[in-house]
Amino acid sequence: MPLAEAITTQRAIRRVKPDPVDDELILELIELALKGPTAQNEQGWEFVIVKDPDVKRKFGQLNRFMWRLYRRIAAHKARDNPAEQRMNRAVQWGVDHFEEIPVYVVCCFRGNRLGFPPVVAASTYGSIFPAVQNLLLAARAVGLGANINTMPLWSNFAARRILGLPFGLTPCVMIPLGWPIGRYGPTTRRPVREVTSLDRYGNRIDGEAT
Amino acid sequence: MPLAEAITTQRAIRRVKPDPVDDELILELIELALKGPTAQNEQGWEFVIVKDPDVKRKFGQLNRFMWRLYRRIAAHKARDNPAEQRMNRAVQWGVDHFEEIPVYVVCCFRGNRLGFPPVVAASTYGSIFPAVQNLLLAARAVGLGANINTMPLWSNFAARRILGLPFGLTPCVMIPLGWPIGRYGPTTRRPVREVTSLDRYGNRIDGEAT
Repeated sequence: MPLAEAITTQRAIRRVKPDPVDDELILELIELALKGPTAQNEQGWEFVIVKDPDVKRKFGQLNRFMWRLYRRIAAHKARDNPAEQRMNRAVQWGVDHFEEIPVYVVCCFRGNRLGFPPVVAASTYGSIFPAVQNLLLAARAVGLGANINTMPLWSNFAARRILGLPFGLTPCVMIPLGWPIGRYGPTTRRPVREVTSLDRYGNRIDGEAT
Repeated sequence: MPLAEAITTQRAIRRVKPDPVDDELILELIELALKGPTAQNEQGWEFVIVKDPDVKRKFGQLNRFMWRLYRRIAAHKARDNPAEQRMNRAVQWGVDHFEEIPVYVVCCFRGNRLGFPPVVAASTYGSIFPAVQNLLLAARAVGLGANINTMPLWSNFAARRILGLPFGLTPCVMIPLGWPIGRYGPTTRRPVREVTSLDRYGNRIDGEAT
């Protein structure tokens, strides 16, 4: 699949079938994820593929706990926004069917830092999210549904214990993977000139860019 | 360009020519960046294209200041590692030629949080780095050199002042763009099975995955 097509048609797919996904395919996706850049080329990442029903159940409980707290806020925020309401319904579906989703990939980074300055945070997260995005694009290219989920990892302590992660590794996102019930397709975004400035914030570029 | 080719041949290109890069092309790259996912689809991003020599000079100074502090540590870390020494030489080149690089794109996220818990940090950075990775892949596909640079932004305070950014926006990465002097090409990474576990950390998947 051409890059531009993969990028423009990638979207969060939350509803997926329970049908199994081949391990080799998952490894191929992670292999493409690994091509993402890391600060100093340190490659301080670890990926945990989760298929064990017991592990899923534990994360499903964490996820439900957080969603119960957050659901009302999300509903309130979306009260005048049908697109957001649709998104919340899809999130609800993912919460309800957490254990039926065939595979999760937990992406972890080496390090365990709280309260660090933004530039360090940017290097840290900037060394895992390019890999995450590669994984999402690669999933899209083979037709697998995927999205970024951080909610089941809200308690780093619990997540570390469930996965047996050492203290020096921080679980960052938990990506559900499965064959989609919905479809991939174009996303809507604010136009590029509305969010882009030249040299100084607010200096928008008009149609006749210099 | 096929997605897999873009992903596997993307690498940090630090040495680029001073030749100008068309504004429309940069906007096209940012447009593809905007296709990246954001938490709650909030799209709380802002991009500042930097071409003004005066703005570049200010960031170049910040960058040199930090590199002078960090250079010895970097050299020490790389003392037995020729690949890392090559990387450091490329970083040095970028520091020395900072003002000659034709364009920078500063990617900012809405929010200004220090010391937040990892799950919030992951949502925040996870809402800008997928866009950053899309931009890097799109740059690779059109043959433009690019890499992730956080160093010139080490002082968020100074960076905000230079770009006139409101306090509610945090500059996150500064991506140099230009026509490469070097070449794109395959990267080397640790093998996928060395960094991937099944269900529990350390439970490596052997050649005959189940």
